[in-house]
Amino acid sequence: MEELYHALKKHLDNGRVSKEVADLSSYSFDASFGEYMPDIICQPMSTEEVVHIVKLSNQYDVPIYPRGSGTSLSGGPLAVHGGIVLDFSRWDNEITVYENDLMMEVSPGVITEKIHKVAESYGLMYPPDPSSSRVSTIGGNLAENAGGPRCLKYGVTKDYVVGLEVVTANGDIIHCGGRTVKNVTGYDMTKLIVGSEGTLGIITKATLQLIPKPIDTKTAMLQFDDFITSGEAVSKILRSGILPSKIEIMDKYCVDAVLSTHPIENVTADAESVLLVELDGHPLALEAEMKIIEETCAALPGCKVIIAEDEKQASELWEVRKLVSPAIVKFGPTKISEDTSVPVSQIPAFFEEIERIRQTYQLNLVVFGHAGDGNLHPNIITDKRKPEEMKRAEEAVAEIFKASLKLGGTLSGEHGIGLFKKPFMYNEFDEAGMKFMKDVKQALDPNNRLNPGKIFPDEHERFVLVHDE
Amino acid sequence: MEELYHALKKHLDNGRVSKEVADLSSYSFDASFGEYMPDIICQPMSTEEVVHIVKLSNQYDVPIYPRGSGTSLSGGPLAVHGGIVLDFSRWDNEITVYENDLMMEVSPGVITEKIHKVAESYGLMYPPDPSSSRVSTIGGNLAENAGGPRCLKYGVTKDYVVGLEVVTANGDIIHCGGRTVKNVTGYDMTKLIVGSEGTLGIITKATLQLIPKPIDTKTAMLQFDDFITSGEAVSKILRSGILPSKIEIMDKYCVDAVLSTHPIENVTADAESVLLVELDGHPLALEAEMKIIEETCAALPGCKVIIAEDEKQASELWEVRKLVSPAIVKFGPTKISEDTSVPVSQIPAFFEEIERIRQTYQLNLVVFGHAGDGNLHPNIITDKRKPEEMKRAEEAVAEIFKASLKLGGTLSGEHGIGLFKKPFMYNEFDEAGMKFMKDVKQALDPNNRLNPGKIFPDEHERFVLVHDE
Repeated sequence: MEELYHALKKHLDNGRVSKEVADLSSYSFDASFGEYMPDIICQPMSTEEVVHIVKLSNQYDVPIYPRGSGTSLSGGPLAVHGGIVLDFSRWDNEITVYENDLMMEVSPGVITEKIHKVAESYGLMYPPDPSSSRVSTIGGNLAENAGGPRCLKYGVTKDYVVGLEVVTANGDIIHCGGRTVKNVTGYDMTKLIVGSEGTLGIITKATLQLIPKPIDTKTAMLQFDDFITSGEAVSKILRSGILPSKIEIMDKYCVDAVLSTHPIENVTADAESVLLVELDGHPLALEAEMKIIEETCAALPGCKVIIAEDEKQASELWEVRKLVSPAIVKFGPTKISEDTSVPVSQIPAFFEEIERIRQTYQLNLVVFGHAGDGNLHPNIITDKRKPEEMKRAEEAVAEIFKASLKLGGTLSGEHGIGLFKKPFMYNEFDEAGMKFMKDVKQALDPNNRLNPGKIFPDEHERFVLVHDE
Repeated sequence: MEELYHALKKHLDNGRVSKEVADLSSYSFDASFGEYMPDIICQPMSTEEVVHIVKLSNQYDVPIYPRGSGTSLSGGPLAVHGGIVLDFSRWDNEITVYENDLMMEVSPGVITEKIHKVAESYGLMYPPDPSSSRVSTIGGNLAENAGGPRCLKYGVTKDYVVGLEVVTANGDIIHCGGRTVKNVTGYDMTKLIVGSEGTLGIITKATLQLIPKPIDTKTAMLQFDDFITSGEAVSKILRSGILPSKIEIMDKYCVDAVLSTHPIENVTADAESVLLVELDGHPLALEAEMKIIEETCAALPGCKVIIAEDEKQASELWEVRKLVSPAIVKFGPTKISEDTSVPVSQIPAFFEEIERIRQTYQLNLVVFGHAGDGNLHPNIITDKRKPEEMKRAEEAVAEIFKASLKLGGTLSGEHGIGLFKKPFMYNEFDEAGMKFMKDVKQALDPNNRLNPGKIFPDEHERFVLVHDE
């Protein structure tokens, strides 16, 4: 490792290589649970530097763990087998806008919010809006195929990537896609790499597609006496001929937690379930479309509709959703944020399952998420110093995934499998399905050096939150 | 082959296996140029039958060529190495609509238009609209990742596939994706298989995402004195905050050919370039948005705007675009339909290149296509009985791709590489890029039995339209 360290230092100047314990521990965690010390951290700022690092990692047979801002909730960037952490956060400054192509080329360390702002300065929009966008890098978003509320109408990160520069496991530079919207030349390596969690290649440049920024938005809050009706409302809205930009859902525990610390005018805590709906487009259409939604929902039993009269009221209503994550920590210091997707029609059934699991395991289990596309985030708020409660949480998480899969859902909608969900992979895939994916991994990274220990479970691996002493 | 034939007949009843010459010749061609006789044709109607066929093909070491309606313009389904053609056209009847999930599950032989109609009967829309949709099967659309005019706003086939059932090269059945909009569980095998032209697996079932059907549409025709301005208009429209559902372009040769046989009121043949713009959404918004487009374009020099007053006039204007393909055959009996994509800002430069190539090679070379996303279709109308002219056409095609790549474009936007474009693959990819794709093919189809002879060129292969006697 000493030799590798010195070899790396030859290629990366200005203190961009370190094996100081203090530095290494800063990279030993992410927004999930794990803690794993790497041996060396590197901060590349060019494709050539990444190539050098990959070639050295091959020479010294050491794994590589690419990393952005470490906001992963699935343990994606954790260096579970030690080795090199490739921190892209300093390569954050390359943004080229091709305004007449509605495209933008970026380096992997650019913060997502900066992409939003630059696009908007051209009257354009980069739709994917993960809630970590103020902190997360585009490289991390690409690795995990990040989502966000706006995905209902506009799709996920993958839908806005038209070209990539990638350094392969053996240190080659390849170009996938290009600067065109439509491209069916050869296999779609772009969409294979995006979402592959850094296990098939290292992204060093991305060309993103932008769209015209919608002229206006309009918001409504729908409060329901029971969550079954709120789930039905989602399908009803989508069947009314209108595609909202966002439909978010929160259960009563979330709303309650928010309002108890942050009261909002007109919003009461007595609803069982709350939907927030945002429309975007031309102001005249928004007016008329919101009327259709109001009529559709007012016809449902126990539904109260609040339509924001102006931007100020709209952002107040959205506060309820934005404050859920900070508010629910009042239930305890440890938050287990889960992520699953179910078919939209199964949202009510999934909510019933969550309520059952809450009762069975006696946990602070709340649920919110992107109801419009069925991507829900059950969160368990607990205390990792209480091993007995953590055991119950472990079992509850397993039950949540079982429930989701039973309803036709999937293990992850937008956070990725990473480290923490791989024990459940065989619940969703059979041997043949896993083999198909493993064959791709084996073909493109035969020595398993790119982010090893992720996605594919070890034999007999099971989900563990707390290790027995 | 005799033994294989009898083995296949044991699994497929009712005359769904044939080696009669008359049958085989019906499957020897598609909508492109080639003619290759298969040895056997099979018409499977279930996943199990496909598994049997694949296993027998392995046992007898014979290639398999999946095929829908044979509308491919790139030679995708041609049995270039003989073997088995897998005709899916009789497995055309399985359609399950999950209306509250906005999803539809279909068998591979379902005609694309039927999918459109069934979706519409639920107030929903399946956006991809390749121009062959009345004839093409969804299986073919999936294999080639088909596009169409509406892709500007809504994206391509791939963007609407959330789940697949696939029979792998060794006869396993795998399930990719599922019935959820968002899914980041493992590698995205769904989007890898879609567009892989039948070379990585055989699709036996697909789950498609539907969207709310827009309430209304509005059409405008923009006629320009020069094509540079028309190209600029595309970027200007997209920068005005409005995302039309379609922006189609035709050069004067196309418009002329249509109007000479089919005069349309108000439309004159004197424009150098014509755009057709369609907006969709709420009627109130359409009115206001069309005004913005009118103002944006009226400010451009030499632009004449016609806005359709009603649906009847709109469909008359669209006739101009729809009749291009049938109309241009008046220039000759042989049509070489090409397909390339360039960055939107490069459309004027590409049109200049096309004009130069037209002059240099003295050919009936016209161009039309989906200007909003830069996907253009240069067409050479010639006569395959004139070898000298065909030679010039060959050279012109090579020049067209050279021009497109020089402008940052790609070999294919929506027709696929198939047989006819593979000689150009090394013009777009270098060795490392090709190796990356070949490694995936090798991993998933190690014996090269699935649609062999496509996408990857042989050594020193060059583009040939006419073989020397």
